[in-house]
Amino acid sequence: MEKEFVKEIADINTDFSQWYTDVVKKAELADYGPAKGTIVFRPYGYAIWENLQHELDTRLKATGHVNAYFPMLIPMSLLTKESEHVEGFAPEVATITQVGKEVLDEPIVIRPTSETVICSMYSKWVQSYRDLPILINQWANVVRWEKTTRPFLRTREFLWQEGHTVHATESEALNEAIDILKLYEKFCKEILAIPVLTGRKTEKEKFAGAVTTFGMESMTLDGKSLQSGTTHYLGQNFSHAYDIKFLDKTGKLEYAYQTSWGVSTRLLGALIMAHGDQRGLVLPPMVAPVQVIVIPIAQHKESVTQTVEKLVALLKSKGIRAQADYSENSTGWKYNQWEMKGVSLRIEVGPRDIENGAMILTRRDTHDKVTATLFDVKAVKKLLSTIQKDMYVKAKKFMQAHIVKVHTMEQMKEQLDKGNMVKAIWCGCQECELMVKERLQATIRVITNEHLKGKCIFCTQVKEDAKEVIFARAY
Amino acid sequence: MEKEFVKEIADINTDFSQWYTDVVKKAELADYGPAKGTIVFRPYGYAIWENLQHELDTRLKATGHVNAYFPMLIPMSLLTKESEHVEGFAPEVATITQVGKEVLDEPIVIRPTSETVICSMYSKWVQSYRDLPILINQWANVVRWEKTTRPFLRTREFLWQEGHTVHATESEALNEAIDILKLYEKFCKEILAIPVLTGRKTEKEKFAGAVTTFGMESMTLDGKSLQSGTTHYLGQNFSHAYDIKFLDKTGKLEYAYQTSWGVSTRLLGALIMAHGDQRGLVLPPMVAPVQVIVIPIAQHKESVTQTVEKLVALLKSKGIRAQADYSENSTGWKYNQWEMKGVSLRIEVGPRDIENGAMILTRRDTHDKVTATLFDVKAVKKLLSTIQKDMYVKAKKFMQAHIVKVHTMEQMKEQLDKGNMVKAIWCGCQECELMVKERLQATIRVITNEHLKGKCIFCTQVKEDAKEVIFARAY
Repeated sequence: MEKEFVKEIADINTDFSQWYTDVVKKAELADYGPAKGTIVFRPYGYAIWENLQHELDTRLKATGHVNAYFPMLIPMSLLTKESEHVEGFAPEVATITQVGKEVLDEPIVIRPTSETVICSMYSKWVQSYRDLPILINQWANVVRWEKTTRPFLRTREFLWQEGHTVHATESEALNEAIDILKLYEKFCKEILAIPVLTGRKTEKEKFAGAVTTFGMESMTLDGKSLQSGTTHYLGQNFSHAYDIKFLDKTGKLEYAYQTSWGVSTRLLGALIMAHGDQRGLVLPPMVAPVQVIVIPIAQHKESVTQTVEKLVALLKSKGIRAQADYSENSTGWKYNQWEMKGVSLRIEVGPRDIENGAMILTRRDTHDKVTATLFDVKAVKKLLSTIQKDMYVKAKKFMQAHIVKVHTMEQMKEQLDKGNMVKAIWCGCQECELMVKERLQATIRVITNEHLKGKCIFCTQVKEDAKEVIFARAY
Repeated sequence: MEKEFVKEIADINTDFSQWYTDVVKKAELADYGPAKGTIVFRPYGYAIWENLQHELDTRLKATGHVNAYFPMLIPMSLLTKESEHVEGFAPEVATITQVGKEVLDEPIVIRPTSETVICSMYSKWVQSYRDLPILINQWANVVRWEKTTRPFLRTREFLWQEGHTVHATESEALNEAIDILKLYEKFCKEILAIPVLTGRKTEKEKFAGAVTTFGMESMTLDGKSLQSGTTHYLGQNFSHAYDIKFLDKTGKLEYAYQTSWGVSTRLLGALIMAHGDQRGLVLPPMVAPVQVIVIPIAQHKESVTQTVEKLVALLKSKGIRAQADYSENSTGWKYNQWEMKGVSLRIEVGPRDIENGAMILTRRDTHDKVTATLFDVKAVKKLLSTIQKDMYVKAKKFMQAHIVKVHTMEQMKEQLDKGNMVKAIWCGCQECELMVKERLQATIRVITNEHLKGKCIFCTQVKEDAKEVIFARAY
């Protein structure tokens, strides 16, 4: 039975890409939508997003941010005000030209991101320093017409949160961009059990219209990098383009300073790719739709179903997302199915266990089995918390083991081919950056250290203002 | 000071329509978006929606429904499969024909509702009776290119939840449509403090593609009707069009039975129009973003701010959404501002109150003042619960007083002009229905009683199968 399930998903070591697609489908996380490049978030996949969303939303609100909702429909003329921004997004912007059989006077675009529409409103709302800061977030769908798509990682429509803040001073805005990056990092660690690399992005990789983009990169089990969130310090670029001015305390009219930042349903891809194994998905308890699956052994016996029902009710009453599987499937099939779905903990209860006043707990992450006293909810809670922490530690160790310092391009190629990310000294010029991308298909993910004296491993020039950076192949 | 605020909003009795728009703007619930017919949900307005959403989502989940998310982008060819449905929606469907400068091979439409895309997926997912029922809901934005728009009530993009269920039998599906209607009604009563009329819609008013539509109508303070939610029994219309078949227990291939149902951000309009008064918004505590506003009197005194801070912290710790207003505004201004925003309860705390160990509570709904013991959180909780109940009772009485039984068209015109809804006997034919719409601008909102012998007040024919219906002018 186990083999049947396993053979339906590709080998994680030899065909990671196919393994990913198989897990997405088999665990019923998502399906392909009828329009090319779109996906359906199936209930199990969407439930993970809801848990993640709830946790992140709580943290954003706790730091003074409030939610709002801005229109998805943007007049074409509004999009084109910030020149760098429109250049970056225009080629992939979906445009409504027609309603029914009527052709519109002015085309309307679907938001690829909401700076333009939000800034047009801020321009009306911001008058005085008393109106600042504005700390608004929105949960929304956006559309970007990507050529190559992959469930969660890159789809033509995706879900995300986008924060858009306005500040009176440069330092306040810059700090906001950095603080949110830290909030994201902590969220990934504590909720998703995913370690991330954070740092400034290069000019080439920054957001269209930003002064500075900070990135957060997670690592996939095949040694690639996945951009999992970004925060942008926008300076006064958008406040100039959209006329966001305020009277400061001295009565002087000033342009405001802004930030924007977001994480998306791509984080579901990060989760799968950071924690999965040959049996399928492995979910950290904090976001698992089902944290504990209880499997009755010999479920035809009344004592078994009664005990299982009592146990599930007890777990639920203590805030644990638990359920029992009373289906007609064989026990082996059930094990495989719930392992595929990444359920953090399995509890087996059979006649002998009941007799012994015991239950068997099996961890999804390590496959370790332990016996606990029947109905000992505290033991279950503790084990879930241990799983959460251990998953982070394991992922962190994996990441550390797969970042290798290199000193030549040959070393770099060798390490990238082995499935590692590399740390290298880079002079800071775009020629070197582009050359590496072309020759090794690797990009600079984040700058980990700046303003240091060092020799570029590409052009071999020694610079006073060299940078230590992470190069990787990325999804 | 009070006058200043009040004069900024139109008179509720003589210009209800302008009063509504003024409240929406002044209470900072919404603003107009840059694209015609769109609105921005500002943080205060969106917070009401979040509270409403949380309460409804909890109730839907408790009845076995799960959330998912389907693409907003629908290939044009998919929309056109159910002929009645496409006829109903095609004229207002926004169509993407272009991405960047590239023209698409097949136009993509933005969902006006999601039956088509969801049914195309159900056709893949449903194989056997074991896959049924499917009880999926989604929270999403939809686009309908309305000609005349008004904040919350009718906008080109709006937010809603749409449930889409699949069942093995007709009776199960029909019951689902009726059960959800009841769930909506209870939700409106207990959470929004809004009484509603429920019942079947006429053929003319039903959803494009449904067998039967059930409607829920709320009443506005100017005596009009507002369609506040609908549930549709779809029969096999969509399962035939989209090929949703399942093997039943006997091994026979059958077409499935379906429902769909939804409520939208229009409920925010219903809230404003059901409870408001000349001072602005009046919110039921269950959805109020701020349930209690604490106003310090003589806030320059340290004892006052200390007491107010302690009180707010205490209220918050007991789950009450409370905050204090320490702004530089005058006390009168603060009163007016928070009344405009509909905050359920105001608490004033000044030096004399502290001395007396008291606090003054002022209800937003009745303007009644009571004195309570300082820090008596239980009294606050009790009063909030009383406000919630009283608001419903008041709205219910208002509705009852404004539904008048009529026996002639003259009576009907008189009552409609007075700002009432009417109950009348109707033969059931569409000619009478259309004639009334043309001559009195009133439509049948719901059928309250069917299959009775009666004389139509329009054509005066006596029918064995006449209907008692509610006619009203509607938003």
